[in-house]
Amino acid sequence: MSHGFFTIISRAEFQNFLKDFHPLPSETVRLSRASGRTLAFDLIADHDWPLMDRSCMDGFAINARDVFGASETNPAYLDCTDTLSIDTIPKMNIAPGECIRISTGGLLPEGADAVVMVEHTQEVGESMNGLGITIEIRKSIAPGENVMQRGEDARTGQIALPAGTVIRPQEVGLSAALGFERLSLIQRPRVGILSTGDELIEVSQMPRPGKVRDVNSHTIATLVKQVNGIPTRYGIVKDDLESLNSALATAVAENDLILLSGGSSIGVRDLTVQTIEAMEDSALLAHGVALSPGKPTILGRVGSKPVLGLPGQVTSALVVMHVLILPLIRHLQGDPAAFDETRRPTHPAVLARNVPSKPGREDYIRIKIEPRDGKLPLAHPVLGKSGLLRTMIQADGLTAIPADSEGLYEGQTIDVWRV
Amino acid sequence: MSHGFFTIISRAEFQNFLKDFHPLPSETVRLSRASGRTLAFDLIADHDWPLMDRSCMDGFAINARDVFGASETNPAYLDCTDTLSIDTIPKMNIAPGECIRISTGGLLPEGADAVVMVEHTQEVGESMNGLGITIEIRKSIAPGENVMQRGEDARTGQIALPAGTVIRPQEVGLSAALGFERLSLIQRPRVGILSTGDELIEVSQMPRPGKVRDVNSHTIATLVKQVNGIPTRYGIVKDDLESLNSALATAVAENDLILLSGGSSIGVRDLTVQTIEAMEDSALLAHGVALSPGKPTILGRVGSKPVLGLPGQVTSALVVMHVLILPLIRHLQGDPAAFDETRRPTHPAVLARNVPSKPGREDYIRIKIEPRDGKLPLAHPVLGKSGLLRTMIQADGLTAIPADSEGLYEGQTIDVWRV
Repeated sequence: MSHGFFTIISRAEFQNFLKDFHPLPSETVRLSRASGRTLAFDLIADHDWPLMDRSCMDGFAINARDVFGASETNPAYLDCTDTLSIDTIPKMNIAPGECIRISTGGLLPEGADAVVMVEHTQEVGESMNGLGITIEIRKSIAPGENVMQRGEDARTGQIALPAGTVIRPQEVGLSAALGFERLSLIQRPRVGILSTGDELIEVSQMPRPGKVRDVNSHTIATLVKQVNGIPTRYGIVKDDLESLNSALATAVAENDLILLSGGSSIGVRDLTVQTIEAMEDSALLAHGVALSPGKPTILGRVGSKPVLGLPGQVTSALVVMHVLILPLIRHLQGDPAAFDETRRPTHPAVLARNVPSKPGREDYIRIKIEPRDGKLPLAHPVLGKSGLLRTMIQADGLTAIPADSEGLYEGQTIDVWRV
Repeated sequence: MSHGFFTIISRAEFQNFLKDFHPLPSETVRLSRASGRTLAFDLIADHDWPLMDRSCMDGFAINARDVFGASETNPAYLDCTDTLSIDTIPKMNIAPGECIRISTGGLLPEGADAVVMVEHTQEVGESMNGLGITIEIRKSIAPGENVMQRGEDARTGQIALPAGTVIRPQEVGLSAALGFERLSLIQRPRVGILSTGDELIEVSQMPRPGKVRDVNSHTIATLVKQVNGIPTRYGIVKDDLESLNSALATAVAENDLILLSGGSSIGVRDLTVQTIEAMEDSALLAHGVALSPGKPTILGRVGSKPVLGLPGQVTSALVVMHVLILPLIRHLQGDPAAFDETRRPTHPAVLARNVPSKPGREDYIRIKIEPRDGKLPLAHPVLGKSGLLRTMIQADGLTAIPADSEGLYEGQTIDVWRV
């Protein structure tokens, strides 16, 4: 009996194929929709930011020279000649021995180079010349202290954010500060999802024995959205080459990445390979990866677009999505750290028992976390059949056992990747 | 000079006030939009899942008794009498000494209680009675092995997913398997964002000296969306009590949570307090929290809705959003682990230098991560003025220094919270 032609490659080799696909072109996007996406071009500031030297504190604008050596026991005394409101352009200079009351964000007047916090000062009465109020200053201040200096965040004509930056709230903030209401970002990948398998029925249908609802296309679409992909479910495609060829041709035309899901039997895997090979300008790149669960993953390309055949078992499909395909979707939208495993959000936990692993493949173990007071949480492996959802429902995350390891030991601190 | 009336409370005390606000009511939501949200009621299965015993493997359905003691050197031999396609309801029984070829997902025939993987078998020719093919089986199998048993994922009339479950892709999958196209979820909080400060202008405007673009409402809206909140920006409100009262009344009517942002000066903080207190059925709950940056945070309630005054400094506002307000938004949408700090996604890293901290307040230090081959990455503190965005742009995340600590030491392993 034939198992089909399998050449298992390592996850790193599989990922190298994925990295060869090119990121998508750019589009213009409103700032409110930019988060999590990647800047396509350098963002150049067309003015300095801050525009002028501004105070970081509520206090007094001073010249640092005037309070040199000041302390609790040896305070300095300055004449406060005016109060600046936050949006006023100061017209006055400060002369030696003078200061001006200033709010957080206020512009520094000419002659001032630092701000002393109000907490380190005290009003001590009218000044001797009768023109202001005397302020006692109980702290020495360095020039520039408590001042946001002109151009500290961005300088005219210079790169404020380089191409390839993944936009977080703070990058949204800097873009807003510089007046950009729109950004040029790499497009979100459109991901076509085809379900195959004669046993599949729609979620709305009541299964009779022998039929199962199409679970995987829903879990996959949910995962695609987590990384800003745009999923389209093409429904259930009949298990024959003609139907599959026609559905795949449509999906390739309308998407940037195509996922074939649902068929777990050898017959469906063979069909996936055949339909990829039947497309024009196509190639089968990988058939099998040293990953557990997830071994029977298929990778091809049609034109310049990746086409993947996912394992049919629901847990296997979930692991393959997390380990291989979500990074690919981030890569297609230009994230330079898409395949960087150290970016996986993890929590340390102590393994509750030994977990053996077969060397030669990377194993992903489902982990349930048990919190403990004042100690790292315990990590309980959740074992079970990968055709069931139960283990992934019970688990809080995954932990990886590297391909060169024979397993993990009880008491060992592991990283739990919350998924 | 007055600093306003400050009673600094700890972060835990501040959070206890936040926990007192009740989660929102439920609504019905399509499965494709359920991810990240919280189940409002127990999800009860109305049929078993799996519906019948099914095979996890491609192989042969057998009775485990028939291969007891089988091994490489002492194989068992069974007659394969038929092949079951994946969606066929088996009509045949298997008799002692018989087996049936089965695909992954296929239904187990009467008389079979386990499946032997095809990899552990070999066809050895026509069977002696001429009615089938003899299969050599080189492995002993326990009853139930490689079988997904009826009801393992869910049982009729029982809770498949309890109220309070936060829906992940795997919970979407189980819901789909059980035929739920819609779920009852807690509503997404509507978050009204009011910007105050006479120095503020819209992002579309060109600042003259003394004016700054309204950065915070954009960063805040971006953060709100990260946790499924629905932000509405109410624009820039004039810095006087009447304007603020009127804008706040509108925002309270239209939202579940209101954030007042932008004013960093003492005057604006006083105004925030006054406007909360001027509302009907309102209370000021907290004014100042032992958090750095983020001390001048204000918490009130109007009716049953939380109203928060954020610090005006952009970095302070970002930290307060991450530490206090995003957990509140998750809490309002029913996440039972909303305030569980162990859920923060972190990465271990080794601190590159000492960082002193003032005891009595929790400090959040910005961290830049430097990857190292084969070692934990180095964590470089990024210090700088909290009115600037630069430190948050340069940083990969935050690390917390607890209130009872005097700082962190070079060489210490810390958790970096990627934000």
